[in-house]
Amino acid sequence: MSTADEKYELITRRLQEVLGGDTIKAILDEGRSPKCYWGTAPTGRPHIGYFVPLTKIADFLHADVEVIILLADVHAFLDNLKAPLELVTHRANYYEHLLKAVFTSLGIPISKLRFVLGSTYQLSKEYNLDNYKLCVTVTEHDAKKAGAEVVKQVESPLLSGLLYPGLQALDEEYLGVDMQFGGVDQRKIFTFAEHYLPKLGYAKRAHLMNSMVPGLAGGKMSSSDPDSKIDFLDTPEAVRRKIKKAFCEEGNAEENGVLSFAEAVLIPINQLRHERQKGDALLEAGLGDQKPFVSDGAPEGTVFTIEREEKFGGSTHYQSFADMKADFISKALHPKDLKTSVANGIIRLLEPIQQQFKTSEEWQKEEKLAYPDPNAKDKKKKKEKVYHPPPPGKGKNAAPSAPSGDVPVVAPGPEVVHAATELAKQQPETPAS
Amino acid sequence: MSTADEKYELITRRLQEVLGGDTIKAILDEGRSPKCYWGTAPTGRPHIGYFVPLTKIADFLHADVEVIILLADVHAFLDNLKAPLELVTHRANYYEHLLKAVFTSLGIPISKLRFVLGSTYQLSKEYNLDNYKLCVTVTEHDAKKAGAEVVKQVESPLLSGLLYPGLQALDEEYLGVDMQFGGVDQRKIFTFAEHYLPKLGYAKRAHLMNSMVPGLAGGKMSSSDPDSKIDFLDTPEAVRRKIKKAFCEEGNAEENGVLSFAEAVLIPINQLRHERQKGDALLEAGLGDQKPFVSDGAPEGTVFTIEREEKFGGSTHYQSFADMKADFISKALHPKDLKTSVANGIIRLLEPIQQQFKTSEEWQKEEKLAYPDPNAKDKKKKKEKVYHPPPPGKGKNAAPSAPSGDVPVVAPGPEVVHAATELAKQQPETPAS
Repeated sequence: MSTADEKYELITRRLQEVLGGDTIKAILDEGRSPKCYWGTAPTGRPHIGYFVPLTKIADFLHADVEVIILLADVHAFLDNLKAPLELVTHRANYYEHLLKAVFTSLGIPISKLRFVLGSTYQLSKEYNLDNYKLCVTVTEHDAKKAGAEVVKQVESPLLSGLLYPGLQALDEEYLGVDMQFGGVDQRKIFTFAEHYLPKLGYAKRAHLMNSMVPGLAGGKMSSSDPDSKIDFLDTPEAVRRKIKKAFCEEGNAEENGVLSFAEAVLIPINQLRHERQKGDALLEAGLGDQKPFVSDGAPEGTVFTIEREEKFGGSTHYQSFADMKADFISKALHPKDLKTSVANGIIRLLEPIQQQFKTSEEWQKEEKLAYPDPNAKDKKKKKEKVYHPPPPGKGKNAAPSAPSGDVPVVAPGPEVVHAATELAKQQPETPAS
Repeated sequence: MSTADEKYELITRRLQEVLGGDTIKAILDEGRSPKCYWGTAPTGRPHIGYFVPLTKIADFLHADVEVIILLADVHAFLDNLKAPLELVTHRANYYEHLLKAVFTSLGIPISKLRFVLGSTYQLSKEYNLDNYKLCVTVTEHDAKKAGAEVVKQVESPLLSGLLYPGLQALDEEYLGVDMQFGGVDQRKIFTFAEHYLPKLGYAKRAHLMNSMVPGLAGGKMSSSDPDSKIDFLDTPEAVRRKIKKAFCEEGNAEENGVLSFAEAVLIPINQLRHERQKGDALLEAGLGDQKPFVSDGAPEGTVFTIEREEKFGGSTHYQSFADMKADFISKALHPKDLKTSVANGIIRLLEPIQQQFKTSEEWQKEEKLAYPDPNAKDKKKKKEKVYHPPPPGKGKNAAPSAPSGDVPVVAPGPEVVHAATELAKQQPETPAS
């Protein structure tokens, strides 16, 4: 059994920032288990950046934290009307399948996690009354400021972007947690929650933030550039191709998605694997080879091995990420070697997840429903030709007129679809929290 | 049985503006009864400006319109957090008592009206989902524009003001009406509803608007100036005093609350009373003397009598408001005489309503709960003195220090109260619709 201090260290290690750590300490000092939630809005398609928070959740479980995974379907709907509610429902199902597969593959016991679907409580009378209470308390200015990092600032912003921070604050109360965990891009939403929940008479919660892993193109991972991020179902070839293309300038450790992935995902998972080898009581067997990202002959304490053929100088075994980064900056570690090792690591992480996908008909079905092929739709629409009878005095032999049945007719959707398209552009490209 | 054209004339007479009249005509032409709602948010205390829409509702009933009276408690809450929800509930009850008393006093059959409390459907899952749908469709800009007349434009506006127009639009769908009736100050909210409901796949409704009666001080009736409006429970003395003080410049018919009240309330009610005398099938007996606002000896067709003693030229019987207004502008009708006749009319209208209040213990109880005496509260608070022990080295004989227990201590409320006070200032001073 760990001490309160050890647990606090576990809960907060590798995080970029902790707000309200004292309240977490106080709970631990009383011998209680803190309750935490991590939420994700199933708007788009999750990418491997999700490994960062999911791996961190192992630390929480090790420290006896009660962890809730919120599948924030109502938030997703608010954030992406492009997806009507039934599409969001399928996406939430897809996310749940995926998250469970990732946890299982890593050996993080899903029996210790509680999965909650937002719509199970976010449409209740009490929740909505509280939302209204917030709306007579929160100024437009504060709501806009809170969403500035997550909601893209466009010329004609929609009301939904202003509601988003308040709903996320209320989730803390309605999930009954002591703290919320998310990416540091959520910082303004978190401080908003700290400011406003007490105004409704609710407790101010602690906030734990992991740093953001840059996309492969250097900046934030972007949905509009599929090569900037790796999908959980990407083939090994696709992974190698994307990593090869990735921005990873020799000697430059800034905005380096490849180096950052090693730091934020591969090294922590390596640590999990070491712990399991040492007989960790919490972790399950995991799926796939479960070998640490370290060569067989590596010395004790190695956190990552860059494998190189002997003729190119042989492998390098790093005792810390700091050493590895220093080598990269000094150009002792070449981008090509880094990329090869990181790509190998990613492929090994994805393999057991893709195995689960291949064996789960239900998950495959949800994937099809959640992300219908846009090209398939277009083809179908093109077939729907509608015959418009020519107006009197016109017809086959009449003079050229306005486009008629020969032009593929796409039924115009209600105008709301255009607003939704607009909204889709505002969708955060990183995990929602 | 009236024809469709006659009904349309009845429905729209004396209104300042009608939007979507064609859809009303189409319903009437099909022989159906249009459905209409008039909503009021029980924020403050209703004033006699309410006679305007309530009298107009008699026209709707005469034209076989199904009328719903919405007591918009959730809107009131959104618009006035000063009043916690239980206070709003009492205010909704007070409003219902009052509105029924007014209708009954005028002989308008309340059995033909349906009273609906907003919270009975506005907190439902479906309604809230639709609210969210609206929020991903409506831009901040459009929501702000829609509320510009009703929500006071302050430096730090609250989110609630942006939600208000959308909720009012949804009410049209959820009440299943063909048209909404309200003051012309609602125009922007009405056009907002016409624009946005179809984007959710709902029908665009027609909108009927009565003109606004100016306050007694000339501008909009204002809560902060109690003398600018007359309460339904004001004594005859208070009525005479307020009317005496009212802005009513000789020859100036603009911003003239006294002249406008004659036009918008007394003359229409006069007409109702004439119709009842002629054996109208719809109207009930009414309460109070029910005499038209016309002297006994007045010629047939008189709509209003200005009573004057013989020595001052005797009474004048007007055949139309236009004649009366012309006389006022030409100074043939003196403000003092106008004020006396209007005050007499108001006192006669209020008398049977106040009689009902006096005989209804329940209504009296609701009035006390809905509008607790602010002075009573202050007195109580002043008694709550708290003793602060002096800091070390200070005390009775120490040097003068910061204010201590001698100063009345008012317990600071949660910060939300300040936001609410801010909001209270934004509360519309005219009937909500």
